[in-house]
This record gives sequence, C-alpha cells and structure tokens, in this order.
Amino acid sequence: MEQDDTKLQFDPHGNLRHLLSLRGLDAKLLTELLDDAERYLTTPGALPARNQSLAGRTIGNLFFEPSTRTRASFDLAGRRLGADVLNLDVNTSSRKKGESILDTIYTLEAMHVDVMVVRDAGDGVPAYIARNVKDHVSVLNAGESDVSHPTQGLLDLLTIRQHNPDFKNLVVAIVGDIQHSRVARSASEALQTMGVGELRLVSPPALAPDPERFPGARIVDNIVDGLRDADVVMALRIQRERIGNLDGVPGIDEYFAKYGIHHENIKHAKADVIIMHPGPMNRGIEIEGTLADGPRSVITKQVTNGVAVRMAVLNRIGKMMGAR
Amino acid sequence: MEQDDTKLQFDPHGNLRHLLSLRGLDAKLLTELLDDAERYLTTPGALPARNQSLAGRTIGNLFFEPSTRTRASFDLAGRRLGADVLNLDVNTSSRKKGESILDTIYTLEAMHVDVMVVRDAGDGVPAYIARNVKDHVSVLNAGESDVSHPTQGLLDLLTIRQHNPDFKNLVVAIVGDIQHSRVARSASEALQTMGVGELRLVSPPALAPDPERFPGARIVDNIVDGLRDADVVMALRIQRERIGNLDGVPGIDEYFAKYGIHHENIKHAKADVIIMHPGPMNRGIEIEGTLADGPRSVITKQVTNGVAVRMAVLNRIGKMMGAR
Amino acid sequence: MEQDDTKLQFDPHGNLRHLLSLRGLDAKLLTELLDDAERYLTTPGALPARNQSLAGRTIGNLFFEPSTRTRASFDLAGRRLGADVLNLDVNTSSRKKGESILDTIYTLEAMHVDVMVVRDAGDGVPAYIARNVKDHVSVLNAGESDVSHPTQGLLDLLTIRQHNPDFKNLVVAIVGDIQHSRVARSASEALQTMGVGELRLVSPPALAPDPERFPGARIVDNIVDGLRDADVVMALRIQRERIGNLDGVPGIDEYFAKYGIHHENIKHAKADVIIMHPGPMNRGIEIEGTLADGPRSVITKQVTNGVAVRMAVLNRIGKMMGAR
Repeated sequence: MEQDDTKLQFDPHGNLRHLLSLRGLDAKLLTELLDDAERYLTTPGALPARNQSLAGRTIGNLFFEPSTRTRASFDLAGRRLGADVLNLDVNTSSRKKGESILDTIYTLEAMHVDVMVVRDAGDGVPAYIARNVKDHVSVLNAGESDVSHPTQGLLDLLTIRQHNPDFKNLVVAIVGDIQHSRVARSASEALQTMGVGELRLVSPPALAPDPERFPGARIVDNIVDGLRDADVVMALRIQRERIGNLDGVPGIDEYFAKYGIHHENIKHAKADVIIMHPGPMNRGIEIEGTLADGPRSVITKQVTNGVAVRMAVLNRIGKMMGAR
Repeated sequence: MEQDDTKLQFDPHGNLRHLLSLRGLDAKLLTELLDDAERYLTTPGALPARNQSLAGRTIGNLFFEPSTRTRASFDLAGRRLGADVLNLDVNTSSRKKGESILDTIYTLEAMHVDVMVVRDAGDGVPAYIARNVKDHVSVLNAGESDVSHPTQGLLDLLTIRQHNPDFKNLVVAIVGDIQHSRVARSASEALQTMGVGELRLVSPPALAPDPERFPGARIVDNIVDGLRDADVVMALRIQRERIGNLDGVPGIDEYFAKYGIHHENIKHAKADVIIMHPGPMNRGIEIEGTLADGPRSVITKQVTNGVAVRMAVLNRIGKMMGAR
Repeated sequence: MEQDDTKLQFDPHGNLRHLLSLRGLDAKLLTELLDDAERYLTTPGALPARNQSLAGRTIGNLFFEPSTRTRASFDLAGRRLGADVLNLDVNTSSRKKGESILDTIYTLEAMHVDVMVVRDAGDGVPAYIARNVKDHVSVLNAGESDVSHPTQGLLDLLTIRQHNPDFKNLVVAIVGDIQHSRVARSASEALQTMGVGELRLVSPPALAPDPERFPGARIVDNIVDGLRDADVVMALRIQRERIGNLDGVPGIDEYFAKYGIHHENIKHAKADVIIMHPGPMNRGIEIEGTLADGPRSVITKQVTNGVAVRMAVLNRIGKMMGAR
C-alpha cells in the first residue's frame, strides 16, 4: 500500500470507512477500536456478545486465498452483529471462468453486498478494490500478500494491551520469517503508533526484512539477544517449503534450535512473558508444542480477541452506514 | 424442455409452482413478476428489501455446475425473504459417491427442503426433478444446459422494461454464441411473449442457432446489420475454448472485431441504446471493457434486477405454499 | 472407542454432554431422545419444527470426510434450533497447512463454537477431541471410521420404533458390508440396549464382522436365512471399490444376487417388513431400485427422522448449556 492509500481509509467526515492497513490509524482510533472490542468479550461457555448493528446488511467474504480461521472469524463476527454473510471462495468459481476481480466486486456491489472482506495473495488488491467501489461500500483487508493484515494487527495489539497497557515500557520480539510476514508488518505498525518501548525482529539473515518496511524496529539475528527481557514474544508461522530449501534457511531441526521458541531460549525473556502466534502453528518448528499450550501462551486468547476486534471494526462501519 | 412441460409449471389452481422455462408464462404473469420485482429494488447503499414470506422454509441451492453469481443471487434472495438456504455443491460430495440426482432430491425433500434451486449441465434435469418431487415441493431452474435460464430471462426483461416498457416498438439484438446460450433462449422466449418489435440474433455462422428454437427471431451474421437502430444490445459470453478452435469460429482478435460489441459498431445502434451482458464477461472478446463500464451499460443493473426477480419468484411460491 | 470413553459422554450431573457412541446410553435415555425427536416431526409440506433453544450458540460442523446428507442434516437441525452453524470442510484449508486437529478445535473453541460436530475417518478422533475440549464444549460424533455413527443409530432406532415399538419381539436383519460399517455398529448397539428380539448380520464371509464387536448378534452368510421372517431389513452401502476386488467379495451381479435386497429374497421376510438404507444408495448393487422406492421402504423416513434426532440431541445439549 502506498502512503496515499492510508487516507483512502477515511470518509470525508474522517470516519473509518475501509480497513486496508494500520498505517494512518492514530493511537486514539486504535485505542477506541480496542476498547470497543473489549466490550464484545464474554467468558468461555457464556453466550457470545451479539447486537443488531449490521442487521439487514450483507457482508461478502471474498477469499482468493484459502483460510479457515480468518474467514470463520469474520463470518462469526458478521453474523453476531446481525448481518447476512456470503462466503465466496472465489478461486473455485469466477476466476476459473476468467472473471476479473473488479467484475466480481461490481457484481456483489450490485447485489447490495456493502461490506467486502478481501483476502488476496496480490499486493495492493484491497486498496485497488477500495478505490473502485461505490461510495457506500466498505472494504476490509483480511490478509494481503506479505504487506498487511490489519485485523490481525488489532487483535495482537489488544492481546498485548490485556497483558500490559503500558506500551512505552514494553519490549516486543517478533521471531521467524519476518520478510514474508504480513502479520509482523501490521503488528509492527500498530505497536509503533502506540509508542512501543522496543520492537525487535528476529530471523535468520535470509529471512530478515527490508528495514525500510519496519521503521524504528531493531533487526536481530541471534535469538537470545532477541528474547532477552522481552515482555512479549510473537512466533511467526514459517512456510514449510521455505525450510531447508531457501538459501540460508536451515533445515527443521536447526531452524527449531536457532529460531524456534522453546523452553531453553524463552528463559531469557521476562518471567511473565506472553507467547503469541497467529496460527496455524507448526509445532516443533517455529514453536515448541508444550510452550504453545502452557501458562505463558495467549494464543487462544488471540483467536478470541480476533472475533472481538472484527466485531468492533464491523460495528463501527455499520454505524457509519446507518448514519448516512 | 418439451412443450408439455410448460404445463407442469402450474399447480391445479393455475398458480406458478415450478419455474422451469419462460415458455408457458403469459404476458400477464411476466408483467406481474416484473412488477413484484420492482418493489424489491432499493437505492444503492440503502438496506436491501426484506420480508418474511419464506420464514421457516428451507431452500436448497443444488448447483451441479459451478456458479458464483447465480448462486449468490438466489442465496441472498432467499435469505432476504427469511428462508434458510442450504448451499450444496453436489459435484463435490454425493455424486462422488455415485448417488443419483433423484436420491439427492428425495433426501432433501425428506429434510423439509421445499424449494429446490437447480443448476445442471444436463438437458431436461429441472423438469425431470419437477416431475418426481412431492406435491408440496417447488423446483426453480437456475440454468439448464443450453436450454433455459428463466430467472436470467426475467431479469433481462425487467432491465429492458426499465429502459423502455414499449416492447412492441423495440429492436433487440443478442450477439455472440447464440447456439449454446440458455440466456439467449430465455430472453428470446420472454421477449416474444411480450411482443417485442424485432429480435435479432447475431453470431458467426458456426454459432448460429437452430431457427426452430427461436421462432420469430431474425438470424443475422453481419454485426452492423444486427446492431442497426437497436434499442437493446445484449452481448453473450463465449467459452474461451470455442474461440479459434471451433470450425468457423475465428481467433480472439477477429472474433472481437467481427462479433464483439465495441465503440465502432455500437454507433450503428440507437443513441440511447442499452448494453447488456449476463456475466461473467470476457472483456476484449465479446465486449469492449470501456463500453461495459460506460454510460450505456446496464450490466450491474442486471445483477441488481437478478436478486429482485428471484425474490419475486420465491415470494410468489412462498405465498402459494402458505395458502395450502 | 474404549469402554471408558462411554462415561466421558456425561457431565458430573449425569447429563448427556457429548454424543460419541450409543454404548453407555441406557434404554431410558434412548427412549427420551426418540420421544423428543418425535415432537420435531411435522407433515411434509408443513413448516418444519423450530425453536430457539440454541439461539446465540454456535455449532461447528467439522467434516474431515466429505458428506452431503449428514452435514446438511446437522446444519438444518442446528439452524432450526436458532443456532449459528459454521460449516468447515477442514481438508481443504487448515489440514493443507499442516494444522493439527486439536489446534483447529482450540481455535474454534476460542471463537465460542461450543458444539463441535465431527466426522472423521480416524478411529477415536471424536473421543480424543472430547477429552481435550474445555468444560463448556460438547462434541457430537457425525461418523467415525468403521466404529460409530450414533445419530444414525438413533434415527434407525426411531424408524424401527415407528414401525413397531415392541423391540423384544422384533427380528432385525442388517445386510451387506458389516465389517466396515459404523452404521451397523451403532444400530446394533442401540438395538441391543432396547432388547431387540433377534439381530442378524448378513454378509459375504469376507465382509463378516469380528463377532466381539457385535455381542449378541447372529452372524449369517446365507441371505435367505438372514431375511426369513424379518420385521426389519437394513441394507448397507458397499464401497464400489470393494466389489470384485476384495478377496471373497463377488462382482456386482453376483453381489446383487447373493447379498443385495431384491424382490426375490425379500419374500422370505415378514409381509409387513420395512426396508432401510442409510444412503447414499448403490441401486442395483446392495438394493433393488424399485424396492427402495416401494411401499415397504422407509428410507426417506429415515432421513426425516435424522433431522429430528439431531434436533433432539442438540436441544438436550442446549438445555444443559443454558442451565449452567
């Protein structure tokens, strides 16, 4: 996403209309979204929070890349706000027929699908759609290439805030395949906006990011240096096909030893460190299974927060639509 | 569909029970359906029309052929009338196990799926199902081989009527692969019933239709003759695999030049001509992209009308069911 | 499922919490479930029964094996009780990414999916999940390897009871590939609990079951002996790939003649015999088509009962959840 696209996210009254990236969302707005999300949290086993703020509206889940969890999360968030949710796995139908993305969008728009949730492997696709939809349509980025995954960034931010809201004094370490990670990008953008104390990006040199994409972060290749005194450790999923095949990326055992989060290296972090992972996990590769299931893990909390932040975003958009 | 099957569409009281074809639906009934559909149209951005006429009913979307737009359109139409909609891509499950179509239908019927929306590549499948379901079940044809696509015909008719309700003075040109087009068949049936002034079918000779299937239409092979003074031009989708491969069908460039709708040849039509396409479009093959997006295009209006006519048909069937 | 797992099905108050197997459900509970299911039956064409006992709850349909009918049945049962139903074909997404079953379950649990309906080809998977979910989550087995299919067993029991509630005097013959049949297992467990008069299992010797899995049943290989004076005949689906390929399993024609249910051999059963099949049927292999469609067949009734027993089970679980 280009810098200019950050403005695209707001309507002329300054309301959030599209969510394409966390760039351009200031600390006040991020805080409001997290506060809204908190209100949607209920205890396990209780009925999930519901309201009718999107009643009568139709949300289209357009997943050009497969996903269970993010799609299910948006689906439930939408339904719990009273919306009709249309799930489209677009790869299996229109694209087979050679229909362009925009024609799919125009078609849905014409069916009164007023919120488009888009996941795509292509860089710039959500912004491209946002620039081309009618004035009354909102676009939410549900994962864009290696560029952006803003609702993931929000749920990560919420999970970190639940642990410790004093961002200025937090050390956060993100570990793994930073270079290809939209999760790292969005988390990093959100954390910088909130004035995080220190953000460390730990990866094998071959998977280190372009520093310009992560302004203000410290790029580290030794994991012990990366984890030292960290308050928050986020392990990233690595594509199995990259392990041992990409130049400079070791095989599974060495990757796990050097860049996986395990009981040995986590000792260097703070005693009350929280361990995060966006899922789905490769247990035994980027994270040790018993750590993922242990008391310091907040991984399922992230999932719960994921539904809540999506409800918060959708609710805000629903209100904006209702006010027109 | 055989002539006798047109009667099959009505219950003993003369109410529309199945929608298999537009043959056998008289001008009065077509007009009523279009009038009903008009009532479901709202402005873009407004909440879509809703009612509860199918509340408690279950609609089964049985798509034995893939489709995004038609399925989504029926899905939304059903949900906006309060129905439960069950989407079944039957190719991926039962048929794999060798279950016959009728056994699938009997199963759904036994689950109180009282409306079956069927798309199938096989000629005669919707009527075959309609002849075999229980008395309380309705079957809607959502696309049948090259034979019939009645809700598409209704939406095309509505779109044309919105432009000019004086069918008797209209010149309509349908352009492209007429021979394989259920869209052309259903539009043609509806237009003839409404007494259209002149209906022209324009195609390469190799894709010209059997004239008996289009009684009263003029078959034309020169596109300029076909478009001259036309009020309505409908471009048809051509299967890419037919282009340049079928005997007598030219390659893409020549096809576009000779049988595509573009800025050059559209000049021969009336100044206020409307341009239609059933979607998904092959831009640059059967239609020029900028025409599809231009002021004369009513292509997205067709999509909006598609939901509305499907609601009109479902609503009528729901009322009939409620009256039993 | 191990014997101990039968206890796993009940919460500390003795309420049914998971449905993993019909083993461990006593005659009183089976009878209550069938009685509840009866209340959900309405006449064809009438509105299906509905209530709001699962309103606000989310059901996850996790089908790791493809299925149209069982999934649709659970889907409709859940929706008719007011639940949100999330359909996940897990093979197409998470498993592709190498996510473990438990991680999928933990993810759904964290999204407030409090009822998991699981179909899996693996032996023990539903119990494994049940042992690992949080206290407030219920697991329903929707088909487990060749081991168990408890809601199928319940619907079979209901269908038999509708014919004749005097189980003690009934002769029931199950015919076909008993060895691989979870349907036969669950029906057999339910029938034995209800004190069925005689249970006969008829199959080619190569497909005969381990007698320990069917305590109290009579294993028969001559179909005439098997059907003689039977009140109930249940034909099982045979996998086409087993026919003529498995040692000792004859080709289609001979299989049909010797182990199919047809007009010739059904004469040996009682005059008012009912004919059952779990579907989908291989007509002309394990059952003669005209028998399946004839007056003695209760095959579509089984499907109707299937939705009703699933509603009964879900409703009971919903009540238990509401009472917490």
